[in-house]
Amino acid sequence: MKIYRYPERKIWPDLVKRPAIERKEISGLIAEIFEAVEKKGDQALIEFNKKFDKAVTSQITVSETEINNSENEISEDLKKAIKQAKENISKFHASQIAETEKIETVKGVTCWRENRAVEKVGIYIPGGTAPLFSTVLMLAVPANLAGCEEIILCTPPDSNGNINPAILFTAKLCGITKIFRTGGAQAVAAMSLGTESIPKVYKIFGPGNQYVVAAKEYAQRYGVAIDMPAGPSEVLVIADRQAVPGFCAADLLSQAEHGSDSQVVFIATDFKIFTETIEAVEKQVKKLPRNEMACKALDHSVFVLVNSVEEALEFSNLYAPEHLILALEDFEQYIPMIQNAGSVFLGNYSCESAGDYASGTNHTLPTNAYARNYSGVSIDSFVKKITFQYLSKEGLKKIGKTIEVMAEAEGLIAHKNAVSIRLK
Amino acid sequence: MKIYRYPERKIWPDLVKRPAIERKEISGLIAEIFEAVEKKGDQALIEFNKKFDKAVTSQITVSETEINNSENEISEDLKKAIKQAKENISKFHASQIAETEKIETVKGVTCWRENRAVEKVGIYIPGGTAPLFSTVLMLAVPANLAGCEEIILCTPPDSNGNINPAILFTAKLCGITKIFRTGGAQAVAAMSLGTESIPKVYKIFGPGNQYVVAAKEYAQRYGVAIDMPAGPSEVLVIADRQAVPGFCAADLLSQAEHGSDSQVVFIATDFKIFTETIEAVEKQVKKLPRNEMACKALDHSVFVLVNSVEEALEFSNLYAPEHLILALEDFEQYIPMIQNAGSVFLGNYSCESAGDYASGTNHTLPTNAYARNYSGVSIDSFVKKITFQYLSKEGLKKIGKTIEVMAEAEGLIAHKNAVSIRLK
Repeated sequence: MKIYRYPERKIWPDLVKRPAIERKEISGLIAEIFEAVEKKGDQALIEFNKKFDKAVTSQITVSETEINNSENEISEDLKKAIKQAKENISKFHASQIAETEKIETVKGVTCWRENRAVEKVGIYIPGGTAPLFSTVLMLAVPANLAGCEEIILCTPPDSNGNINPAILFTAKLCGITKIFRTGGAQAVAAMSLGTESIPKVYKIFGPGNQYVVAAKEYAQRYGVAIDMPAGPSEVLVIADRQAVPGFCAADLLSQAEHGSDSQVVFIATDFKIFTETIEAVEKQVKKLPRNEMACKALDHSVFVLVNSVEEALEFSNLYAPEHLILALEDFEQYIPMIQNAGSVFLGNYSCESAGDYASGTNHTLPTNAYARNYSGVSIDSFVKKITFQYLSKEGLKKIGKTIEVMAEAEGLIAHKNAVSIRLK
Repeated sequence: MKIYRYPERKIWPDLVKRPAIERKEISGLIAEIFEAVEKKGDQALIEFNKKFDKAVTSQITVSETEINNSENEISEDLKKAIKQAKENISKFHASQIAETEKIETVKGVTCWRENRAVEKVGIYIPGGTAPLFSTVLMLAVPANLAGCEEIILCTPPDSNGNINPAILFTAKLCGITKIFRTGGAQAVAAMSLGTESIPKVYKIFGPGNQYVVAAKEYAQRYGVAIDMPAGPSEVLVIADRQAVPGFCAADLLSQAEHGSDSQVVFIATDFKIFTETIEAVEKQVKKLPRNEMACKALDHSVFVLVNSVEEALEFSNLYAPEHLILALEDFEQYIPMIQNAGSVFLGNYSCESAGDYASGTNHTLPTNAYARNYSGVSIDSFVKKITFQYLSKEGLKKIGKTIEVMAEAEGLIAHKNAVSIRLK
């Protein structure tokens, strides 16, 4: 832990700095993987499954039987939990569908926007130790609500060639039936280029390791869009004297357990809460199964004591955290001061894990200070907003001269002519 | 012109293909420019002004006097036109500011989104033959409405070191007072890195040549966001028997005059309209001052005769045009069939140039088939949407078990603990 008591403002820029991400030089490998997938299609994926995931797979497409069987392989409790989470996520994301409002900017000139779903989207779900079925909900629910025609999912097989049943169950619950057994950069390549089994998509969503991140970046050369740039997960907790140290510690640790590169920041306005939270963190971390990872993350965590909530929020805005928890008595009055954050949790009972799983908000959020210029995933991520305009002859008459004068001043005479010929 | 009468569907994918963009290998040059700007700041910009724009400049910042004088250098007609355009653009973009709706997903669990402006944005306006003051309106108006705190503008000087007065006038009208005399990749580098004069921004907007495009791509390594990927401008016109060939030709030409790489596509359901439009294009193009450029664009333009409006729209959706004009009698019934387009112009009097300048819609739109996965610029481009959630103790009780069960199934015990400790 790095502990700072009332640090001077001039050192803040150092405190909010993210560690430089160690990028191994993998662009050559990524290019090779894309080339192999482009040339050999499914066969390349089968070979990569063997090479990278030690899995013997003959079929890339997960069969209907496998998908249906998943239901029998997970507990009733988990099924119920996933269903409740889905309901809440659906409710919140459905509220984000904006209405079309037609605006008559000038009499006879009507402008509006309409949403159209991105027709083909791909969801990537990592395999490995933690089967992120919650991310299936966070991406498939808004994709469905937006009306995406084709929603496909890629996830790596285990060494037996199987897919985690919770992932299959959740996908099916969300109406996704095109599921493919492939992971890493090769999955991203397959969704960008298409193979015999896997359809090419227009936008790729989902988290992943450095290979997946690099492949998503690379995929953009093929005209594919991605959800957002990636970085390690983060939480920043601001606590005042009414905060509960044990709760704050639990939130900080739920971030720390994600990985050794997780970003954990705690800011308190009260000395007692500050020290007690540090103690609680040290106590609670010992009992965690992912203790080693959490401890590594805590090594570079930042604990800051400040004079006021205003100061804490200034620090937070400079940091631009993915998750911001306001363990404050009068949190409402501070909401307008929040400038840069991915998702905000208010009060002592809004723990980050609520938003990670089941409150209804999306957990795919901007990290690495991207909360300054990016939003988290929402319905908006799955639609384009097309503008429409209708001008009557009278409408064009009203703004015709304006267009002609401006077009001429920009030296674009054909633009001017398009008006003149209509008003002749 | 490439003319296709009732082409078979199987060749459509060839017809909608954009020409491969000839990308000179300029990444080395771009990296050098960024490095120079990082090291030498303003001095580098002064040197690049001399090297690339043949301009001797001592001050990078455009003075207040220069900005104020611009008013005396352009005609009253042009000032009036710019003001009307600004009013319409403001009216339409103001209507895009979404209301905050709080959703109680479960009793005691309330979720909502709030907009926060991207604090610092940079606008790039190209110089050269056409002074694009209209683009200043399209970017500065929504930036202001969104509430961006710092809006800066970079544009290259002419060989006398001056900035086009229409650009200065429009910027001032939009409340932009931080204007900098620098263009090309060096301007993008300056906005990404900051110099003595130019503040570093979080998001960069605006069109430009291949160097600007490459620099915007490169800037993303520094955590800067950009408006959207770039490509040559495009129009696709769909005409039925009631269309007016002279109008259609004028619209096609107002696209063609943009540059030799402009994309011009015409689809008709009526043979007479088809041939008469081709004739009208050939006649009108001769009178254009930018005739040479327009002719080059027409060389690779595509004219397609089809059987029905439905077929035309299918073709259009496959093409995903930046601008789509429906010169159709019953255009309203076809709106729901539009899937991929940047901006749509309805009926015989909605010429593209109306949207380019003054109707109120934005002219910064996705090209190069990016209309499949990107929206044009709008208020949304200048804000982040932050999610908020408040859970009461009762709210957490209601969804606590769901969170615990899911967290445990994902192997994230600290996530579970954050709930358990609160409900103990």
